[in-house]
Amino acid sequence: MIEFTHRLRVLYGHTDQMGIVYYGRYYEFFEAGRNELLRNLDLPYYRMEEQGLFLPVVESHATYKGSFTYDDWITIKTMVKELPSVKIRIDYELTNDAGELMVTGHTVHAFVDKQTRRPKRVPDSLLSVFRPFFKD
Amino acid sequence: MIEFTHRLRVLYGHTDQMGIVYYGRYYEFFEAGRNELLRNLDLPYYRMEEQGLFLPVVESHATYKGSFTYDDWITIKTMVKELPSVKIRIDYELTNDAGELMVTGHTVHAFVDKQTRRPKRVPDSLLSVFRPFFKD
Amino acid sequence: MIEFTHRLRVLYGHTDQMGIVYYGRYYEFFEAGRNELLRNLDLPYYRMEEQGLFLPVVESHATYKGSFTYDDWITIKTMVKELPSVKIRIDYELTNDAGELMVTGHTVHAFVDKQTRRPKRVPDSLLSVFRPFFKD
Amino acid sequence: MIEFTHRLRVLYGHTDQMGIVYYGRYYEFFEAGRNELLRNLDLPYYRMEEQGLFLPVVESHATYKGSFTYDDWITIKTMVKELPSVKIRIDYELTNDAGELMVTGHTVHAFVDKQTRRPKRVPDSLLSVFRPFFKD
Repeated sequence: MIEFTHRLRVLYGHTDQMGIVYYGRYYEFFEAGRNELLRNLDLPYYRMEEQGLFLPVVESHATYKGSFTYDDWITIKTMVKELPSVKIRIDYELTNDAGELMVTGHTVHAFVDKQTRRPKRVPDSLLSVFRPFFKD
Repeated sequence: MIEFTHRLRVLYGHTDQMGIVYYGRYYEFFEAGRNELLRNLDLPYYRMEEQGLFLPVVESHATYKGSFTYDDWITIKTMVKELPSVKIRIDYELTNDAGELMVTGHTVHAFVDKQTRRPKRVPDSLLSVFRPFFKD
Repeated sequence: MIEFTHRLRVLYGHTDQMGIVYYGRYYEFFEAGRNELLRNLDLPYYRMEEQGLFLPVVESHATYKGSFTYDDWITIKTMVKELPSVKIRIDYELTNDAGELMVTGHTVHAFVDKQTRRPKRVPDSLLSVFRPFFKD
Repeated sequence: MIEFTHRLRVLYGHTDQMGIVYYGRYYEFFEAGRNELLRNLDLPYYRMEEQGLFLPVVESHATYKGSFTYDDWITIKTMVKELPSVKIRIDYELTNDAGELMVTGHTVHAFVDKQTRRPKRVPDSLLSVFRPFFKD
């Protein structure tokens, strides 16, 4: 498994009139988490695009056990639990500063050629970085 | 089953540098769909809040088979397929103007007391409107 | 002067915990207004991009006299008050259903070559459509 | 003058299909800047709301000299240049990592009673913190 932890603060603009973060906004926090996980592996996403690869989201999911409010710190644990093959699945766990698990979720991404927008195999450059984490 | 169809146009601000709608934005379109379904049943969501009820999202999901681009019309079919009990599940199907199904998803909402933020039973006012649609 | 009126409904996701539309969201409503004004002139913005032109925003401004809340209809009056030369300025007036003026603002856009990202002259195709509105 | 510097990274979801940050998104970055300035003065905004005060935005403005792209760091310098009286004006300067000034702007906020939503005087608790910075 690969995992990385990142922290973000809730803005006023993230809340809605229920006084909690709007449910769709968590997907931006998930994005921040995976950006930092990839950067930490020295595989920043912008470099994939430079090399002709897009990773569009093909599935997204979130379960809300609790809610974050304005000015809270969100601790985002981002995990890759399986070696990617045709697609890559990324899992997220968001905890508050009391250590309570508030929101979990996952995204699934395809590998797509930037020009043709057709599916591509997982690039070897990514696999060679990921493989050591999934040794038996 | 209850269903309602609503249409929205994609703004430039909904797109990202991949040239397609950002994956998290679809949850706003889902919200627009359920707003209009509830309004069409003469149960607009703001009235539920006026009556002391919140319907926070406890789960959200989307599957992206294709993508919408700037200025596209999105046809949002919103469906309630089961009579709500403790929670309500709402399904969404987003098609383009060629009739192609591009994005599907669902949300699950709890019924919560606006003051105490504790779970509530589905209000009778809602059930009495919903029940006729689920007569066998 | 050129003007066009468009209407949009406030989503829950547009509000913040103050119970009103978040100040930055109005710029999306301004965008919707100018999209529809341009489309109504048979000059939809996507076609400008197809013809190699970007219209990035170089200035934006809003004055908030009142606020919109969830589920309100916003009536967006979009206006071009001067024939564009190097730049184009677009003005916005947002009124509620009681006819009260709630938010005003403007944006200024440059004309930029899509490839080189360098300034371009206003295209004749646009000027020929705009000019008849500014005959004295 | 009071000033504070904060840094944020651009997410993919902040960009649009022009490949740059959407113009309306900068107002969230401005918000992050003023949150951190107020927190740094030991006057976090949530505490003002706890004390019955809202600071709604009555005016917002941005000038875009350049643009930020995905994954850029934004350095946000937030400034209060005048002692607030009936309203407070906050200025923002956003620079990239090459030190180039890309976006400037300001917001003006009213002081409003949380219950009545009517104008209030600037609270003494805020003035007593701000005043020492404006001694001539």
